[in-house]
Amino acid sequence: MTCVRPDNPASSDAARPIAVFDSGLGGLTVVRRILDRMPGEDVVYLGDSARVPYGIKSPETVREFALQDAAFLMQFDPKLLVVACNTASAVAIEALRENIPVPVVGVVEPAARQAATLAGDGDIGVIGTEGTIDSGAHAAALSRLGVQGEILAAAAPLLVPIVEEGRAQDDPIVLSVLTDYLHELQRKRAAVLILGCTHYPLLMRAIAKLMGPETVLLDPGAATAEAVADVLGELGLNSNRPSGTLRCHSTDNPQRFARVARRFLGRDVGDVIRVGTDELVAVRHKGVTS
Amino acid sequence: MTCVRPDNPASSDAARPIAVFDSGLGGLTVVRRILDRMPGEDVVYLGDSARVPYGIKSPETVREFALQDAAFLMQFDPKLLVVACNTASAVAIEALRENIPVPVVGVVEPAARQAATLAGDGDIGVIGTEGTIDSGAHAAALSRLGVQGEILAAAAPLLVPIVEEGRAQDDPIVLSVLTDYLHELQRKRAAVLILGCTHYPLLMRAIAKLMGPETVLLDPGAATAEAVADVLGELGLNSNRPSGTLRCHSTDNPQRFARVARRFLGRDVGDVIRVGTDELVAVRHKGVTS
Repeated sequence: MTCVRPDNPASSDAARPIAVFDSGLGGLTVVRRILDRMPGEDVVYLGDSARVPYGIKSPETVREFALQDAAFLMQFDPKLLVVACNTASAVAIEALRENIPVPVVGVVEPAARQAATLAGDGDIGVIGTEGTIDSGAHAAALSRLGVQGEILAAAAPLLVPIVEEGRAQDDPIVLSVLTDYLHELQRKRAAVLILGCTHYPLLMRAIAKLMGPETVLLDPGAATAEAVADVLGELGLNSNRPSGTLRCHSTDNPQRFARVARRFLGRDVGDVIRVGTDELVAVRHKGVTS
Repeated sequence: MTCVRPDNPASSDAARPIAVFDSGLGGLTVVRRILDRMPGEDVVYLGDSARVPYGIKSPETVREFALQDAAFLMQFDPKLLVVACNTASAVAIEALRENIPVPVVGVVEPAARQAATLAGDGDIGVIGTEGTIDSGAHAAALSRLGVQGEILAAAAPLLVPIVEEGRAQDDPIVLSVLTDYLHELQRKRAAVLILGCTHYPLLMRAIAKLMGPETVLLDPGAATAEAVADVLGELGLNSNRPSGTLRCHSTDNPQRFARVARRFLGRDVGDVIRVGTDELVAVRHKGVTS
């Protein structure tokens, strides 16, 4: 169960895929940006829909799940691993870097870098899951970058289920929940608001309306795709093919995954392969192999 | 790893514990009713907080998780298994009965029996997770009981995260979400409303206010405790001790479990033991033993 590319065993390092995981479907918003930026790359994706969400769970559990997800993806011999989940990026990035023998790019650090550039001396807001906000990962990354403005973080636990439920952005419930979470950020007129969860870009229009034109909304997907391009460029690992493939795996309900994926990815996702969480546990216990 | 009662190997069958599992903490509302009704019973509880919620996941995944949860609890040599989770009761009760060598009591059938008695010729409403409502389990159980009135079922996906977030029952967001889900049931003046998820009794006051005095709200916990008492009585397995013990396990974050449990159980839960989901997978793969 090591490298799964028997059809092309002589492939160069640059032809190896980019591996991406998330707690569910939301990470496809990051895949979308990667494919827009680097259409020649192959992407292999794992969504852990059977154990979603990660954002309400303890750092220890999220780290263990993230290591299992990564161990599964390492079987595809990727050249780089993207942690598309904000919660896993916030609490598991170090554990992943210690255990995974390829570069690991999360969504928190690229978002923080872009926010620092955009905000100047202004304040920076972050909304995310409980796990992401409690970790303080964005604040720590912004502080390492020497950001001077105030950092305003707010957990927004109902937004993921609201997006999953498929409510319209002008639904009164959506607007009242957003108002509840954002009123402090509105009042303080944050210069930048980091949408610190892959589901939130799907509420971009409603959030923009509430925050007004003074606040730049930052979807970490684009910054993350840029960070991936930078790392591949430095390592000379950019694919030179005209187009790549996307191969999706889900730990639950591949049909539902395929159906809902279009909202996140902006295109059809093709066939989705089901992988049981017991298989993830088994691969992890065998050890991470590349 | 079979019977874990080495301190009391000669214990009679009646002294064996009642095993209870749920996707998380909510099942403690059922445990509360069991302890009120049968204070002499020992209860061993497993909350699968690492993989919560079950209500948004496929029937196949919920069945597999339920079989793992049950396999773990069978190690305590219980005399009876209670499925306190409505979603697992709705989609996994048959698989559990086929695989578990002790009586299995779910929360759907007792609730349906009580609703049928209370409703007379009136309509019966059910609210629950997507998984519970999509399964049609309540409607099927009510139909088997020959219920004549209309059965009105509504999925209410935001209520679990709202309860988990700890919002007050008079929070305007709670009231507007409830109004959104309940307006059809209000309009049709259901005689009984089954609260088909263990979290919903924590919103009882707000739901009662919206539904008005004509609708009886049915918390399945009491009916389930009665069904457990009936089965134990028929088998002559009632404990005759004055008081029993409660032993709780959680697959995530035992400290948080112990802290929040009080809201569901109405009393302190004591020390909570953490069990990794990888241990559940391992026990299940070794086979269900009693």
